[in-house]
Parts: sequence; structure tokens; C-alpha cells
Amino acid sequence: MKQKRDHVYKSGHEDYNHLDTMRHSCAHLLAYAVMELWPKTKLGIGPTTENGFYYDFDLPVKLSDADLTSIEVKMAELQKLGFGFERSVLAVDEAIKRLIKQDQTYKVELLNDLQEEGETEVSFYQSGEFIDLCKGPHVKNISEVRAFKLLSVAGAYWKGSEKNKMLTRIYGTCFSSQAEVDNFLKMQEEAKLHDHRKLGKELGLFVFSDLVGAGLPLLLPKGATIRRVLERFIVDEEIKRGYLHVITPPLAKVDLYRTSGHYPYYKDTMYPPMVVDEEELILRPMTCPHHFMLYKSSPHSYRELPMRLAELSPQFRYEKSGELTGLMRVRMFTLADAHIITPPEQAKEEIRGVLDLVDYVNTCFGMKRGVDYRYRLSLGDRNDTKKYYKDDAAWDHAEQVLREVLVETKAPYFEAPNEAAFYGPKIDVQVKNVAGREETAFTVQYDFVMPKRFELTYIDESGKEKRPIVVHRSSLGAFERTMAFLIEKFGGAFPAWLAPVQAIVLPIADRHLPYAQTVVDALKQANIRAELDDRSERLSAKIRDAQNQKVCYMLIVGDKEESEHKVSERGRSGKDYGMVALDAFIKNIREEIDTRSLS
Amino acid sequence: MKQKRDHVYKSGHEDYNHLDTMRHSCAHLLAYAVMELWPKTKLGIGPTTENGFYYDFDLPVKLSDADLTSIEVKMAELQKLGFGFERSVLAVDEAIKRLIKQDQTYKVELLNDLQEEGETEVSFYQSGEFIDLCKGPHVKNISEVRAFKLLSVAGAYWKGSEKNKMLTRIYGTCFSSQAEVDNFLKMQEEAKLHDHRKLGKELGLFVFSDLVGAGLPLLLPKGATIRRVLERFIVDEEIKRGYLHVITPPLAKVDLYRTSGHYPYYKDTMYPPMVVDEEELILRPMTCPHHFMLYKSSPHSYRELPMRLAELSPQFRYEKSGELTGLMRVRMFTLADAHIITPPEQAKEEIRGVLDLVDYVNTCFGMKRGVDYRYRLSLGDRNDTKKYYKDDAAWDHAEQVLREVLVETKAPYFEAPNEAAFYGPKIDVQVKNVAGREETAFTVQYDFVMPKRFELTYIDESGKEKRPIVVHRSSLGAFERTMAFLIEKFGGAFPAWLAPVQAIVLPIADRHLPYAQTVVDALKQANIRAELDDRSERLSAKIRDAQNQKVCYMLIVGDKEESEHKVSERGRSGKDYGMVALDAFIKNIREEIDTRSLS
Repeated sequence: MKQKRDHVYKSGHEDYNHLDTMRHSCAHLLAYAVMELWPKTKLGIGPTTENGFYYDFDLPVKLSDADLTSIEVKMAELQKLGFGFERSVLAVDEAIKRLIKQDQTYKVELLNDLQEEGETEVSFYQSGEFIDLCKGPHVKNISEVRAFKLLSVAGAYWKGSEKNKMLTRIYGTCFSSQAEVDNFLKMQEEAKLHDHRKLGKELGLFVFSDLVGAGLPLLLPKGATIRRVLERFIVDEEIKRGYLHVITPPLAKVDLYRTSGHYPYYKDTMYPPMVVDEEELILRPMTCPHHFMLYKSSPHSYRELPMRLAELSPQFRYEKSGELTGLMRVRMFTLADAHIITPPEQAKEEIRGVLDLVDYVNTCFGMKRGVDYRYRLSLGDRNDTKKYYKDDAAWDHAEQVLREVLVETKAPYFEAPNEAAFYGPKIDVQVKNVAGREETAFTVQYDFVMPKRFELTYIDESGKEKRPIVVHRSSLGAFERTMAFLIEKFGGAFPAWLAPVQAIVLPIADRHLPYAQTVVDALKQANIRAELDDRSERLSAKIRDAQNQKVCYMLIVGDKEESEHKVSERGRSGKDYGMVALDAFIKNIREEIDTRSLS
Repeated sequence: MKQKRDHVYKSGHEDYNHLDTMRHSCAHLLAYAVMELWPKTKLGIGPTTENGFYYDFDLPVKLSDADLTSIEVKMAELQKLGFGFERSVLAVDEAIKRLIKQDQTYKVELLNDLQEEGETEVSFYQSGEFIDLCKGPHVKNISEVRAFKLLSVAGAYWKGSEKNKMLTRIYGTCFSSQAEVDNFLKMQEEAKLHDHRKLGKELGLFVFSDLVGAGLPLLLPKGATIRRVLERFIVDEEIKRGYLHVITPPLAKVDLYRTSGHYPYYKDTMYPPMVVDEEELILRPMTCPHHFMLYKSSPHSYRELPMRLAELSPQFRYEKSGELTGLMRVRMFTLADAHIITPPEQAKEEIRGVLDLVDYVNTCFGMKRGVDYRYRLSLGDRNDTKKYYKDDAAWDHAEQVLREVLVETKAPYFEAPNEAAFYGPKIDVQVKNVAGREETAFTVQYDFVMPKRFELTYIDESGKEKRPIVVHRSSLGAFERTMAFLIEKFGGAFPAWLAPVQAIVLPIADRHLPYAQTVVDALKQANIRAELDDRSERLSAKIRDAQNQKVCYMLIVGDKEESEHKVSERGRSGKDYGMVALDAFIKNIREEIDTRSLS
């Protein structure tokens, strides 16, 4: 079971230590090869990364990607020696002397830093002729590195600072088998092709504008269509499940966030306040305080609880421009947000309901539970009263509730200590992206602190005032991020229910335009997002363009189609369905859309 | 025709001068009566207002609304004298002397002000025993004042300044007939009952929160439902009409508004800028620059034009807290906005399309063209180059285009000189609210300036680069304002398609709960917004509450209904439709909703 999971998840959880160790040893192998090829090279550092490793070098030559092959050949040659990794310990003074002698100035600098920090001893690892200052650990023998591949060459400032010299960074990866390396390279290739920024441009989904500002995407008509479909989908589904959708303003007085305790804490990630007349307003970084004020606008009975307040909530985050990435990391996003205000006794049932909704939504997106996503139970630390609100009994109860729901629903999950929110434990929805990397898409949080701070109450059956707890949750996360994810997942070839253009009608010649228009009208009448290509281009050009735009179906119409009230149906992958009656096509695609078919 | 219009519109346009003159004469009648009753009274000013007139007095007694009747009696008595209004002119010096003698200190102050401004002569009007400093004009004889009514007493500082003494202001109104006075009073009464702030609270549509901030409404579930219905309605209708909906961020770099020329000009009505990383961002006061940047993100051919870019656009305005009013005047609103980028030759057809859409939307809201709303053609002034962009030929053409559309579509409209926007003439949609007052709901603007500033272009049929014009328009205005309007128009009793709760099921006894739930499920299945009143209350109480909440239909279920799979249908006005089959009810209400029936 664990073995299998390794293939599914690539992030640094659980049993990835061996892979990490192997990769670090491979970095030494790389450095060994480079030193053999260019003995005057000065070594920087060589850590592992999420997908492999890199090593920074101050080289006497300028390298390009083309040079990687000769380094790989040298690495393979050295690997055949079958050397081990022998650890030795030296006093820092001695180590500095040794490295000064070898003219390894960068390593000397590192040792000086360590000495300043109070270190007295350091370790070295010797492999064949190559010895490197290193904490370890390493594999026993280099033969354990089953398969590796150098990926690219890049420039990188020493210690990440522009003030220092730019070194040559060589990226590589390594796995337990060649098959895994091949798979990784294939996924990398696909991820590049599926990059949502590239596809977003090619398919006319969104743009950025220097004058509007960084991290503030403008959704073009097709992108806005996908967004609208997603919004209506989630709102309708949530209402069906008893959520009450509300609309609150995306800003508030700073006082609101002082009451919640967010303001001093989240200040750095918030936009600056604005003074408007006598008020100090700030763009919101989260919705909960708004929902609490809405809840508090009238008294509530136990009969109204659990109250599931939901909103398509615009939120703002102060992000450094260097950290912005397409739709993935933006300065403003809209979260499919909700706050379930419930008596603690009903919390378990509510969280079960949330996970059921998440499973449903993910299924509609073609994601398999336990393969494409799983859950992470993020727990608190009773001893860390700085990071976590102190209330051991509440923590115990909340963690138990979340764990029980995960177990009872047979959810694939793992536990992560010390990852909870300040106000309670949470379940993170961990989604695997197209590059195979696992990320937290959004969370389901159990909160027993905010209800106290905001003095939320309800009247129970005996007429007593009671305190509810709050479940903070999303159902599909932020629309921006979800769109980025879906664009990459489907490579732009969206299933019909999400596709901005579901069908395009291609008249063979201009004389077929009137019939083509009839077909488009009939499609639109059936609420199908249809377009007409009325350009006087050759059919082959029209087909090519429609395929590039990944339109679900091309409907070619000529004399024969017109006389029989038919269309010649063609899929975007090139599949020819032949002539079909227009009504039959409409019936089929409507069903495909209505059932949210993924085929 | 003109006579009829007087009844329809109450704002100060066109032929309202006689009404205004009559009202001013009535104010003199009021002052005459007050002086007769309390001869030591000192007179302030007595102007007309939109709905009548007032007069400010420094009285030797304290008045309340209850005293108005005795003043009315005295006014009627004096009116029977049938006096005229005789004008006389005096040198300001002489006038001052006369009024000092009469101890009319406020009038003396006014005369001193006039003298300082350089006036040398002033006029007085004598009516019976009463003479007042006054510019006129007046009716010939007081008998022309056919019907009047004093409305209320209030305090008002002399010259509107807190530093001065508080005088007694008496409000009154007057019309050509008693029927008109009665109608006016009835409308005033209704306006009070229909006040959207009062209904918004009673029906649970929206609230405000001190901690969130003034002018920032929070829509409760029912209010959000109406908003959602309106949003989907307008988006679907606009898409049907060829609009391309986009989504752009509600903020941008200040530079964007410097480019548009708005920033220095609109600065006072904008929120203050925020510095985020290296950028200076500002919440947007309008959408056009965003749409222009989106348009400019790729080159465009004449084949793509007219391009109708639409958005549900959140916008922010700096409003003083004293000017905020419920949903009518807020600090953030969402406009059903659009910018049509078109060659000038196609502008007329586009504007025709916009007016057609406006007529359609208004019809869906139960508004009659020419009765509940009309158009105002707001024109520029060729000589005022400070207020209006200088381009006489463009102004002539644009005004002609707008006028022609209005004439050709037989739209009820009037022309207003010197009311245009800086960048071109516009058509204002003038809507009459429940109090009978006409207001500009939103506008359709012809803009030949911004396309130059933003260097918008398209490639024409011959491959040449051309400059389009832009039509700025809304279709239903701001959702906040429209909701306020609709709440007041329908007094909260929304037609089924807009109603937050379309049907409520009322079980007679608790044993009917299971069947009641079946009925609710069937209704929800048919996408009807249905609720269940599962309280153990008496049926009469449930009916009363449902009526107060103005739920469209109450469905009462007991033994007989259950056994026959029926419901006893009751309208919110109390009408009893008797027992009907559940299926039949569903069919009927669905049709009522789908056709947006207003009954």
C-alpha cells in the first residue's frame, strides 16, 4: 500500500527519506564529475529539492544545457566505480584549514558562518576521490542511485544575494528506476505544455495588464464563461445541500479585524488601510468576521442551527510581485467560502457533509479520491501555547471529531502534527497537480476560538444561551486557483460542461452560411455555447483553428448536411463521427453537459 | 399630452413653472396666516421645493404638527378674500429702512447681503394686508391656488448654520386640484410603508453592521437570493443579445486612472490609494479603463466589432457618511456595466439595441415606458470647453445619433442642455420611484474621447487602422439601487420570479410533517424556492407569519390533502384558491416564474 502511494504522491511526507537521501548522494556524484572535468571548480552548495537536487558551482567555463550530456557520461563512468560514502568528523578549525588549502572559498565562508554560530565540529563525506563538507545522510553505495538525469543549467547568486557572484546551478533528478525517471520527464514535459499561463494565452482565457497591475488577472470572455459555469455549479450544489448564500462587502473597518485578532497577526499579508470619511477601512483577507456580524444581526434559536453561511467571497492578499504566478498566486481571489455555525454536538455530522461535498465536487472535476487527492489531518501541539490557543479539552475533542469523520468515511488521509490553525485543528484537501506535485488546495477548519471572540450565541431547547462552534470550509477553493488547476489538468480540452465553446459550426462554402446559422441558432436555443466560423477560409483551416482552440465539437455543414438537416460531427481530437441528425447531436451533447460527463 | 405628463412626472422639468409659481404664492398665504395668528413673528425665507414649499419663521410660540390645522383654517379664511399679488420696487436703502421699522431682522440681514453683492433695487409683493420681500413671480390671484395641505413642522437653523438661531420651518404642498393633493398624500404614505430600509429589515433582506462600516450592506440569504436572480437574469439576457461577459479586478494601479484622465478629476469621489509592494493601487470608481485594457490585449478586426464587453462590476465611491441611504446610496456597488466598442457608423444600431434591452428589462420589472420611466437626452455646450471636450463635429454627430434613435424608436424623451458627460452626450434613463419622484437610474453614453486617450483601434476591411467609439451603458443600473427600487415598488411582495421564498408549506398538525416534507422536496426538485414551516404553532399563526413575510403561496396540508396528494393553496393577499393537485400547482407556479409574470 505504501509502495503504491509513493507513486501517487510526490511531496515530502512520510517515507520519502530514502528517495531524498539517494538524491543528495546523486548531487555528490554530480559534483565529483564536475571536479573531474574542471578541477579548478569551486563548490557552492548541493541540496535536494522537491523533485530532485541541484549543485551550485563557480566554474572556469561557461556551461549550457548542451554540456549536460558530457557531465552525465562522466557521472555514469564514476558510478561504475561503485564507491561508498565514508563519513569523517573534523574540528571546524581543521576543516577551515583543509578547505583554504583546496582553495574552496565558498565552503570556507560556510565554515566561518558555522563557527560564528558556535559549531565546533563538522562532518565530511568521502566518495572515491571526492570529499565534500556535508551533514549527510547518504546511501551506502553509489550503486543505489538507480537512475538519474540532469535537467538544466541556470545562474544563481551565491547565498541568493545579488551582491554576490553568480554561480552556475545544475539541476538534476534521480529515482529508484529508469521508468520513474522517464515518467517524471514525461510529466514535466506535459506540465510545460499544460502550463495554465501558456494555455490561458493560447485559448484566450485571461490576460494581465501592466497598467492594471501585477497579480490582477482580467478574465476574457472565454475565461469568464468557465468562471461563471463554476460559480453557478457550486452555488446551486451548495444551496441544494442547505447552504444559505449571502453577499457581504469585500472590505470592512480595521476594527473588525482587531476584534477577530487578525489585524496585528495578519497585517503583513493585508492591503494597507484606507481612510474614508471618518472610517478606517481595509480590504478583507478572509470572510469569517463578515459572516459573524451577519449572524449576530439577529438572535438565533437552536432550530436554525447548523447555519451554513456561504459566499463567493472576494479576498485580498498582499503578495510580493516576485511571488505572483498566473492564476495560481494572485493579489485578489474569490473563494467558495462558508462558515457553518453549529452546536458542538452536530459538528461531526457537518464535517462529514463537507467532505461529502468535496468528494462530489472533485468527482465532477474528474479527480479520484486517494489517487488525485487525499486529506491531511493537521493537528495542534498542546505545549505550544504561543502558536495555538490554549484549551486542551477543546483541542482533544475537535481533533477526535475530525479523525473520526475521516476514519468513518474511509477517507484516504494522513496526520500532520503541528500544522493546525491557531484556533483549532483542520483537514487539508491535498491535491496532486499535473506535474505530480501535491498541494493544499483548501481546508476544513474546526474553530472553537472565534465564537468566543465574537460572542456568537444561540438559544438551546431549554431556553439557555449557548456557544456554537464554527466550521470554516471551502468546497472548491479559490476560483482563480481552481481554474489554473483545471486548465492544466485538462490541457485546455475541457469537458463539455466546462468548455467555453461547446460546438462550432463550420460551413464548407459561403453558400452554406444560412443553414450554418440555423444550426447555431438551434444550438443556442438548447443553451449550448455555440459559435459560427463564418470566415471565407478553407475548411481545413477552420478545422485546424477549432482544434487548436479545443472546441468540443466541430459541426461541418455542406449541401448534403443541409438537405438532410444534419451535421457532420467531428471531435477535437480528430475523431470523425460522420453525419448525424441535428436533433440527435443536440440531444447527445445536452446529456453530456447535464451529466457533467468527463469523456 | 403635456397636461397628462404633468401627472406622470414630478421633477422640475419643462412646464412645471405654473405649479412652482402657485406653490410660492401658497407660501405667501402661509406666511400671511402665521402673521395674522402671531403678529410678532419674524419672517425667514419661503422657497418652493420639489414637492411643495416651506416657510421659516421665528415664532413667539412653539409649534407642533397639531397646530397646523389652525393655520390651515386661517389660510382658507384669508384665501376667501381673493386677493391679488401686487409688485412694487424699492431702493435697497428704502427697503432696509422699511423692514427695520417692522422689526423683520432676518429680512434686513438678507437685504444687507444683497446690498453687499451690489443690488440697488428689490421688489416686494403685497397680498391683502401682507407684504413680503420677494423676487416673484406669483399667480395673479390667490384663488388660483386650488388645493393645499400643510405637511409638517421642523426646526431649521437660519441660513442653515448651527451658529444661528433655530427657526420653525413649516412644510406644505399645493396642487391644481384636491384630487392631486390626495394622491400626493397617498403616495407619501405608501412611500413610508414601502421604504426599502424598513422592508429590508422586516423581510430579512439586508443589514448593516457598525463594525463592518457605514454604506456597506450585508445581504442576508433572502436578499442575496434576489440579487442572484437579478444577476443571472441580466447576464443570460445580455449573452443572448451578443454581449461578452468578462471579469476584471475591482482595483488597478492609479496610473490607469491617470491615463483615463479620471484621477485628478474624480479624486475626491475615489477611495485613497494603497501601496502594495512597488505598486500604487486604487479601488475602481468605474469599469471602462479595465475594459479598454482588456480590449487592447490583442489586435482586433472589424469582423469582431461591435464588441460588447459586459461585466457585473463592483465599484467604489467615497461618500460622506451623512449622505448614505440604505441600499440607495452606498460606498460600494455592483453595476451591470458594459462598453460597446464600435465603428462610429454602427453606433446608432448599437444604441438602439441598448434601449431595446432597457425597455425589455423595465418591462420585466413591471414598468411602463412613458409612465414609469422615460429618457433624457443630455446635451453638451459647444462654448463650454472647460466642461466638455472640444470637438464640435463629433458632438454634433453624437447628439444627432442619440436623438435619431430616440425619435425612431418613438421613445418618450426630453432634452436637457448642458447635462452631458465630459466625453460626449448621453441618454439618461429617468425612473419614477414609489414616491413619484423622478431620478436618473443609469445612463447610455456616447464617448469619442476615451478611445483616443487609450489609443483603441481596429483594422477595417481595407486593412487600415481605425479608431472606434465607445458606448458606455448599463442595463439595469447598480444592483443595490435596483433592489432598493424593486423592494419599494413591490412593497416587498415580489413577483414569483424575484421572490426569495416562492412557496411555504404549512402542515396543520405535526403528524402532517412527513407529507409536508414530500411536498417541499417536490417543489425543490422543480427548482421552486420552497420552505417548510415545521414549528408546532397554530395554523393561523403560521399563515400570519407567511403573509408578513410576503411569501407568494402558502400550501396548507392536512389529512385530506395528504390522502389526495394535493395542497390547499393560499395567496399572500389572503386569497383562497382551494385544494389543487400538487402537480398542477407546480406546473402553474413554474409557468408564472418562467414567464416572469407580474401578477
